[in-house]
Amino acid sequence: MKVEVIARLLEGKLKGDGKREITGIAGLENSGEKDLTFAEGVATLRRAARAAAGCILVPEGSSLPGHTTIAVKHPKLALIRAAAALLPKTPVKPGIHPTAVVSSSARVAGDAAVGALAVIEDEVEIGVGTSIGAGVFLGRGAVIGSDCVLYPGVSVYAGMRIGNRVVIHSGTVIGSDGFGYVFADGRQQKFPQLGQVIVEDDVEIGSNATIDRGALENTVIGQGTKIDNLVQIGHNVRVGRHCVIAAQTGVAGSSEIGDYVVMGGQVGVGNAVRIEDQAIIGAQAGIPTGKIVRRGLTMWGTPARPLAEFKKTYAELTNLPNLVKKVKALSRPKAATAKRR
Amino acid sequence: MKVEVIARLLEGKLKGDGKREITGIAGLENSGEKDLTFAEGVATLRRAARAAAGCILVPEGSSLPGHTTIAVKHPKLALIRAAAALLPKTPVKPGIHPTAVVSSSARVAGDAAVGALAVIEDEVEIGVGTSIGAGVFLGRGAVIGSDCVLYPGVSVYAGMRIGNRVVIHSGTVIGSDGFGYVFADGRQQKFPQLGQVIVEDDVEIGSNATIDRGALENTVIGQGTKIDNLVQIGHNVRVGRHCVIAAQTGVAGSSEIGDYVVMGGQVGVGNAVRIEDQAIIGAQAGIPTGKIVRRGLTMWGTPARPLAEFKKTYAELTNLPNLVKKVKALSRPKAATAKRR
Amino acid sequence: MKVEVIARLLEGKLKGDGKREITGIAGLENSGEKDLTFAEGVATLRRAARAAAGCILVPEGSSLPGHTTIAVKHPKLALIRAAAALLPKTPVKPGIHPTAVVSSSARVAGDAAVGALAVIEDEVEIGVGTSIGAGVFLGRGAVIGSDCVLYPGVSVYAGMRIGNRVVIHSGTVIGSDGFGYVFADGRQQKFPQLGQVIVEDDVEIGSNATIDRGALENTVIGQGTKIDNLVQIGHNVRVGRHCVIAAQTGVAGSSEIGDYVVMGGQVGVGNAVRIEDQAIIGAQAGIPTGKIVRRGLTMWGTPARPLAEFKKTYAELTNLPNLVKKVKALSRPKAATAKRR
Repeated sequence: MKVEVIARLLEGKLKGDGKREITGIAGLENSGEKDLTFAEGVATLRRAARAAAGCILVPEGSSLPGHTTIAVKHPKLALIRAAAALLPKTPVKPGIHPTAVVSSSARVAGDAAVGALAVIEDEVEIGVGTSIGAGVFLGRGAVIGSDCVLYPGVSVYAGMRIGNRVVIHSGTVIGSDGFGYVFADGRQQKFPQLGQVIVEDDVEIGSNATIDRGALENTVIGQGTKIDNLVQIGHNVRVGRHCVIAAQTGVAGSSEIGDYVVMGGQVGVGNAVRIEDQAIIGAQAGIPTGKIVRRGLTMWGTPARPLAEFKKTYAELTNLPNLVKKVKALSRPKAATAKRR
Repeated sequence: MKVEVIARLLEGKLKGDGKREITGIAGLENSGEKDLTFAEGVATLRRAARAAAGCILVPEGSSLPGHTTIAVKHPKLALIRAAAALLPKTPVKPGIHPTAVVSSSARVAGDAAVGALAVIEDEVEIGVGTSIGAGVFLGRGAVIGSDCVLYPGVSVYAGMRIGNRVVIHSGTVIGSDGFGYVFADGRQQKFPQLGQVIVEDDVEIGSNATIDRGALENTVIGQGTKIDNLVQIGHNVRVGRHCVIAAQTGVAGSSEIGDYVVMGGQVGVGNAVRIEDQAIIGAQAGIPTGKIVRRGLTMWGTPARPLAEFKKTYAELTNLPNLVKKVKALSRPKAATAKRR
Repeated sequence: MKVEVIARLLEGKLKGDGKREITGIAGLENSGEKDLTFAEGVATLRRAARAAAGCILVPEGSSLPGHTTIAVKHPKLALIRAAAALLPKTPVKPGIHPTAVVSSSARVAGDAAVGALAVIEDEVEIGVGTSIGAGVFLGRGAVIGSDCVLYPGVSVYAGMRIGNRVVIHSGTVIGSDGFGYVFADGRQQKFPQLGQVIVEDDVEIGSNATIDRGALENTVIGQGTKIDNLVQIGHNVRVGRHCVIAAQTGVAGSSEIGDYVVMGGQVGVGNAVRIEDQAIIGAQAGIPTGKIVRRGLTMWGTPARPLAEFKKTYAELTNLPNLVKKVKALSRPKAATAKRR
């Protein structure tokens, strides 16, 4: 694709050689003359001056003399768009691998792909254009929508439901039992775990994550939400739409997360918490059981507090040694103080 | 099952229509006229007034006019008991799937089930009534007791031992090497990891958890203990009986956990810690290496302290801004202070 | 192997019966007369007095009357060395299991082993002496060096590269997509994830860990580094050589970790952090995005600070109640104070 074509596609301002052929995407450091890359921020733009890339996406108003550039409002976003045009999606080779174990009552769309040694149980449904990786397990009656990608080794328990255009990475488990026990008669008695997991359209889930089925209700992952590796979502949790949940975060049972919520890595959310739309939870923060986080708030710490408050207390905390000294000085007997004057 | 039969079973007090037929269990919101559900707590009882459930378990002394109810001491526990009677356990279909790879020296009980594409190595033993899911790996000489359920994709390393009535969810790994290194000659030297994992009877382990084999001793999970998803248990750890360990908690090597201990999510326990019986460790707490947590204590924070102490310090911490102001006022030069009076 | 032979091998000082035959390694408590064990530290040496081991490695200058001992500088390290001599490595049985699904374009070294139901895609390379466990997935073009062990159920995505003598435990995923999104047009837009994971020689990775491929650059795990269970390494991260990263730690995208860095369990490292050589990060510490940790520093807490500082503040924090009392006393009205005198 010629640079001038990319510039038109991105509605950007081209400087330099528009006739160059671009065939790929690369990072600043490892790019070559046929690669498109991007640069944002002062430090990165400085490094970009030495890049070998055939074309660099830069912010409007920036220039990189000697380079072919396209100036756009948001270079990183523009690269995403250019990549969609430049890099063809690997087409799914339709068909069921001869070593896959597929029940005769499963309904697999004609142009879906089922990889080697996958296990597809009775009455499973797999939609058009979906790719089921090697060694994936789909339990009895599980429903997978169209244009999904399930990477090798994903497990979907019986009866769980996955929407369209969902991507699930290796080792992730959808639908294991929720963790609910009542202690009685000297032992832990298991509460019934009968609900489903409903994963809505356009969700992506990383590798080795775990999403538990609901107990008596369902666990729901809302449309467009992105979940990172090793995240745990407990039973009955309802995650809203277009959220971003970073690696190793855990959400305990029956919590409700709104739309457009952003959670850093290793966040812990207690039971029956409500996090309203557009809230941001900083990495490693802990939201105690039953807490409500109001719309748009940014929280940090354990127990989590609004960020401004956290920062203020933290500043005073690091200044504690000085405070202690001051109080010591004030506590000196009057006589001594007098003498010093 | 008729409501009056359920009432008798639970030794509860029936109000309303005892002749109704109940066929299932459901949540308050999604229940229908053939469902049993339960309600506890003021808010839930209020919501229960609008529920469509055929019968509702309520606490003694509560009433829900217009509904058929059974009053019991502990509604949630009563639901567990009713569910055991109402919902028949899916019977294990005995037999070895033709695609499973089972060594001729493995001893599989006649009425056990081995799923598609499971791999059962030499001299493995599988007890009566046990169900081995699709794609499970059982290494050479592993022993699995009777009436266990290993969900698809569980890995049990060679020589590990699982008791009776143990449930292990997908992706969990039993018996990987412990993490023990000594730095010498410019590199990390691996300490031998030769011990076993012993999982006692009635244990349940969630999905994608990891339990390491002992180094020179064994790692032991005591009878009736319940372990949630993504939990890490290090080498030589001894977990007692009837404990509850929530998701993403990690216990480092050689720690000892007593009986009836409850650990919240994302707790971190250092090396060689001792947690005595009935202690409770709050979510995200960190117990430093070598620490002893006394019987029955509740701990929170990192480093963890008794809850009352934690709360007191925390209250004063959030009040720091006021303290700082007070000290500032006290520090003002006398003259200025005098003038203001 | 005779005790006197072991003593010579370890260059240690033998006391007692050098002619004893030793055949194995065991812990203090479970050792027998044919076992070698070790003891370090006062408490352990006291317990060692009752051990049944045939020979005990002890620190120079210690004695255990009535026992056969070898005194060495570093008993634990000496045990590692003795184990290497005493315990023969299980030889890899070369050959491809008939149930493995191996592409005809894959190059598997003649003396490598491929386990039951492993899936080896097109153009994969597997080096000499490498053992690929049951059910392992190696995506198209993945390269595995020589003398590696991949335990059952490991997934390596297409194109990833593993060096020589690398050990990867069950359930670990190498090469899943990094977690990179830009929010635009009301939804999360995925940034291209095109880079590789490069795992260098002599690395060991625990079970159910996840290492993401780079976005436009590569993710690199340096030579000799050891990574524990359930660890998450984000895209573009560069981990140096001979590091030790304990369980459940997460490193976010584009961070750089030097050589000989030690990280405790459940540590969280933000984006674009730089941790210099030989730094030590305490368990559960959190390093905020963009932070630089200087060479050799020990850090703790969230946000992490140098350990000495953390400890000082922490001591004053636990002493806050006293400080509050003092300030209250100082704040009492003069009159009242006067009266009391």
